Amino acid sequence: MARTALIYSGGVDSTVLLAHLRAEGRELHCLSVDYGQRHRRELEAARAICAHYGVSHRLADLRALAPLFGSNALTGGVKVPEGHYEEESMKATVVPNRNMLLISVATAWAVSLRAESVAYGAHSGDHAIYPDCRPEFAEALDRAVRLADWHEVRLERPFVKMDKAAIVRRGAELGVPFGLTWSCYVGGERHCGKCGTCVERKEAFRLAGVADPTDYAA
Amino acid sequence: MARTALIYSGGVDSTVLLAHLRAEGRELHCLSVDYGQRHRRELEAARAICAHYGVSHRLADLRALAPLFGSNALTGGVKVPEGHYEEESMKATVVPNRNMLLISVATAWAVSLRAESVAYGAHSGDHAIYPDCRPEFAEALDRAVRLADWHEVRLERPFVKMDKAAIVRRGAELGVPFGLTWSCYVGGERHCGKCGTCVERKEAFRLAGVADPTDYAA
Repeated sequence: MARTALIYSGGVDSTVLLAHLRAEGRELHCLSVDYGQRHRRELEAARAICAHYGVSHRLADLRALAPLFGSNALTGGVKVPEGHYEEESMKATVVPNRNMLLISVATAWAVSLRAESVAYGAHSGDHAIYPDCRPEFAEALDRAVRLADWHEVRLERPFVKMDKAAIVRRGAELGVPFGLTWSCYVGGERHCGKCGTCVERKEAFRLAGVADPTDYAA
Repeated sequence: MARTALIYSGGVDSTVLLAHLRAEGRELHCLSVDYGQRHRRELEAARAICAHYGVSHRLADLRALAPLFGSNALTGGVKVPEGHYEEESMKATVVPNRNMLLISVATAWAVSLRAESVAYGAHSGDHAIYPDCRPEFAEALDRAVRLADWHEVRLERPFVKMDKAAIVRRGAELGVPFGLTWSCYVGGERHCGKCGTCVERKEAFRLAGVADPTDYAA
């Protein structure tokens, strides 16, 4: 059985990816990364969903690195902006080099597990404000990942040609427990319904024609 | 003044690189990574040498990741092997994907510092047992680093065509305080003189024709 290390946030995209790869018969090992995000509910969501699916789950604790990242809205020091991702203010949600960091840690773990791949939930709607969501970044990093050890690990982005609505539709086919997933960046007890990621989440369910079980505050 | 984040171990190669870049007039920011190595003396050496040169020094604490790495001789669980790097047993010193991890963290820091480059002390004698010392790995990762943020950061390996003896000679020209540097992997109070990195250190001074101030136990 193909063994895969999945970078797993507990959000919609990576949860559908978990269900999608599991349906393919993969042996999954899920890795969530604690980088000091204020939306810590996503880490609890990740744990609960891995338990739901009976797949292995580990937490990589990178909180000690937070002082190196400078101020940003996800780790503190700046207010989480509201509205659409297109707006300039959403640049405050950028954690420098986050994707390379997550992929580096997941690759180290994949090598020690003798896994064949590291998968993550990049999709076609990933935003141009995130430089490390560009395909040419992912391609260069994929090449580096393959060369990082004698045991070759591939980088997989199975949803890279799908948009978020298509991912929600795929999740509905697979019976994903969307009510357990977490997206909101604000860090309250309920999804705020107003931050960029809540707005995007609502829209994806609407465009997919799938009932949204989320309990939004607004 | 060009600003550079230097991946700095407190060993011979990166200390000579520190002195070399400082002589070029760079504004240096040195980053040492604590990944749970048993040779913790190198972290103390790094701090002392940065103080000697009056350059900024930060420690990135990755100890929380050690459980993901599996057993290896540098973080515990396996005895540090003796002898030359060519020997099979030295494979036990491999920390999976260590270079990508260090470079990812340094790049995140470089972005937040608005530095122009991340430099590290790779050299021509880096050993084929370390897959992440291969030039094609470094080239792919350099491309990923340049694309990781809108603020472009370069990856620099100024000593990549020099061997360790040439690095020692360059250090002697620059007046590097070699007696403050630390190489030994064993983690004792003195350099053991027998592990792969001690053997290599001794040989580099001998080949360079530079007096070796190291206090070896054997």
